[in-house]
Amino acid sequence: MQPPATKSTVRVAVLGAGNVGGPLCRMLLDDADGIEARAGVRLELVGVAVANPSRARQGIPAHLITGDAKSLAANRSVDVVVELIGGIDPARVVIETALEAGKPVVTGNKELIAAHGAELSRAAARAGVDLLYEAAVAGAIPLVRALRDSLAGENVWRVMGIVNGTTNFILTTMAEEGVAYEEALSEAQRLGLAERDPTADVEGFDAAAKVAILAGLAFRCDFPVEDVHREGIVGLRGIDIAFADRLGYVVKLLAVAERTDIRGPGDGGDPEAGPEVSVRVHPALVPHSHPLASVRGSFNAVFVEGESCGELMLYGRGAGGAPTASAVLGDLIDAASNLSTGGPGRAVPRRTVVTRPIEDLRCAWYLNMDVLDRPGVLGAVATAFGTHGVSIRSMEQVGLGEEARLIFLTHVAREGAVRATLDDLRQLDMVEHVGGVLRVAGGDEDA
Amino acid sequence: MQPPATKSTVRVAVLGAGNVGGPLCRMLLDDADGIEARAGVRLELVGVAVANPSRARQGIPAHLITGDAKSLAANRSVDVVVELIGGIDPARVVIETALEAGKPVVTGNKELIAAHGAELSRAAARAGVDLLYEAAVAGAIPLVRALRDSLAGENVWRVMGIVNGTTNFILTTMAEEGVAYEEALSEAQRLGLAERDPTADVEGFDAAAKVAILAGLAFRCDFPVEDVHREGIVGLRGIDIAFADRLGYVVKLLAVAERTDIRGPGDGGDPEAGPEVSVRVHPALVPHSHPLASVRGSFNAVFVEGESCGELMLYGRGAGGAPTASAVLGDLIDAASNLSTGGPGRAVPRRTVVTRPIEDLRCAWYLNMDVLDRPGVLGAVATAFGTHGVSIRSMEQVGLGEEARLIFLTHVAREGAVRATLDDLRQLDMVEHVGGVLRVAGGDEDA
Repeated sequence: MQPPATKSTVRVAVLGAGNVGGPLCRMLLDDADGIEARAGVRLELVGVAVANPSRARQGIPAHLITGDAKSLAANRSVDVVVELIGGIDPARVVIETALEAGKPVVTGNKELIAAHGAELSRAAARAGVDLLYEAAVAGAIPLVRALRDSLAGENVWRVMGIVNGTTNFILTTMAEEGVAYEEALSEAQRLGLAERDPTADVEGFDAAAKVAILAGLAFRCDFPVEDVHREGIVGLRGIDIAFADRLGYVVKLLAVAERTDIRGPGDGGDPEAGPEVSVRVHPALVPHSHPLASVRGSFNAVFVEGESCGELMLYGRGAGGAPTASAVLGDLIDAASNLSTGGPGRAVPRRTVVTRPIEDLRCAWYLNMDVLDRPGVLGAVATAFGTHGVSIRSMEQVGLGEEARLIFLTHVAREGAVRATLDDLRQLDMVEHVGGVLRVAGGDEDA
Repeated sequence: MQPPATKSTVRVAVLGAGNVGGPLCRMLLDDADGIEARAGVRLELVGVAVANPSRARQGIPAHLITGDAKSLAANRSVDVVVELIGGIDPARVVIETALEAGKPVVTGNKELIAAHGAELSRAAARAGVDLLYEAAVAGAIPLVRALRDSLAGENVWRVMGIVNGTTNFILTTMAEEGVAYEEALSEAQRLGLAERDPTADVEGFDAAAKVAILAGLAFRCDFPVEDVHREGIVGLRGIDIAFADRLGYVVKLLAVAERTDIRGPGDGGDPEAGPEVSVRVHPALVPHSHPLASVRGSFNAVFVEGESCGELMLYGRGAGGAPTASAVLGDLIDAASNLSTGGPGRAVPRRTVVTRPIEDLRCAWYLNMDVLDRPGVLGAVATAFGTHGVSIRSMEQVGLGEEARLIFLTHVAREGAVRATLDDLRQLDMVEHVGGVLRVAGGDEDA
């Protein structure tokens, strides 16, 4: 079959030929006819910038390779620039160079977009070109486009999901194989799913960058990544995952962006005040019946809730070279099409939002503590809860010789009250140790 | 009708104020400020066409209402037309009128798009305006945009999903409450999830229209709805659902569009021949571990698989007034934005595809038959399978007094061979009755 004739070829420069850039370059080189047949746009790879140009790149002709990303981004024979260098510098200045030269930019750089997305978007708007970043969040899952375009008019009040495959693999392994955190981490490293220094994943930095971007899209604001409340999975114990399972929950590292001024359908919030939000990353108990509970291994999934759309979930490969390159390719075709129709896609309006402190968060809690097995202990513990108005939904007691382990689920309570309760409990002589302290997913409803 | 308030206001006409049009009109009237804040576009409802204009419409001012849809669609004070009348006529001629008048059209009309989408898209391209139909498939789930834009360059080889909420509710109720088809259907009718005449849903016509549209988007072709192989859920027995459950499966009405010339990653098919596809709707056994298995009640979900993107799933409310209106609103904002930037979105290229006859389909099968409990029966039955090269994966025998019930799962076999086997089995004196005959989902792999 002959590809249809097209008016023009769009010339593409790819900056970075690593995990994502490599597969993307090979798609552009090996499947240009197929892409044109499917997308109606002819993409021609005209340059590839790499840090070490003397090293041979599998499948990329040597004459396309350069070590000078900035010059390539500004080159007049390039129509669209794809940035896959990663990190803040030099990616930021290279993108600015491309935008100033009037070229649309496609990037998968979550760190840069989370930190400087607002100013880069303004630079793109000034230049009248696209800045697209579907690949920055959740790989091949078309989440950015869904929030930006499909739900453009929707009053979205919650985005909640699993956006880091490494930690989800670790948590799935701990739950299903009953192994400790360290062992599951080693397994992830052995399989290439975790870095040698896993900090960015296990401490929640990666998820925090992604949820800042999602909050910006969902609530039409610039959400500063520094304002994301972040807790990782380091120190999470197998015992709490096992107890959670018995109680009907699975433990997931959740990224949550939610309106705190809207309580459900028909509540539009206060139109005079700006949206009030809570944006956070932390491990949480997810009920077995929730669609997110069945997201296993390195898969990602994000749940979106809004006024009219109801509940939506998008699920797929959140990382990896080919899936992320697929997301870049979708954006690249968008940018190339917009070049030929003469204008960039719609910019997202930017409102001001107020971030609620984490102390104001209202949710249910799982608490696990070791106490001395003596009369009056339960009374003293229950009094500490009662003093701060934290209502107990269920309690289970497990004997441990001289000690006893108490596992509580609370009703929905303000986080500040739960913290104050924990402070009091730690003061009690008969409380030996407060172990697992985990939020239960589900926002402001009693699960 | 009033003149536009500002230059950037986009004037919208809505044709049809029923289940979807009603909620949409109220969003446009009550939340114009909110939509503008979120989407950056001012939408003004300037006219609503209904069949019976003398009837009062809740929340819609009388002066906006007209009985003449065609005149409203052509009116010069209308910028964008939303068609929610449904059915082929008069929706088709009204859309043609709007497109000829140079107005973009947003529709949720699956029947019309499945039957005449190709010619209407050509009319839109001639007029240089958008024809958008996210709401025609799977309500609020952003499936059309994902396939059209996010996966524009992707080599998609399978789209498989649950796209009819009514039948999924019936099947969920049969499975979870152990009731018969008729009872589950009555329950769906009582809850307003099924029409009094449920034919369009239970015979698979609704799903067939949707999968024809999905096949067109996924494979960049015009897929004729008449070429969809269609089997509904009428006559499905609770006993087969129960046996399937014991074997590790749940029964779902699946809509499937798949390339039959591609067997997996790295296989691009024959570039000389056009894509070869199978597009069908039928009940099927889905393994409990598959993400589609946990899609319950009236929810919809669609699984997409492709060369680079891997596995994606989109899940949500596939029907209902507000979710479908949400999808319309997303398209409406797109069309309105494209008006101000001066060009329509990208048209999908249209390739020619070859439809494989259903006899060539390769999948595993579930078969349930009642036989006389006599020596030699199993040998005769097994011989019938062997004669046609259909390999048995598992067999279970349940005694029923004089008779026995045999439940088979086959390995992957060509459908023609399975049908020939069934013909032979029905000829055997000792086979009393061939009951449930159901495909097992999973394409060409052995489950």
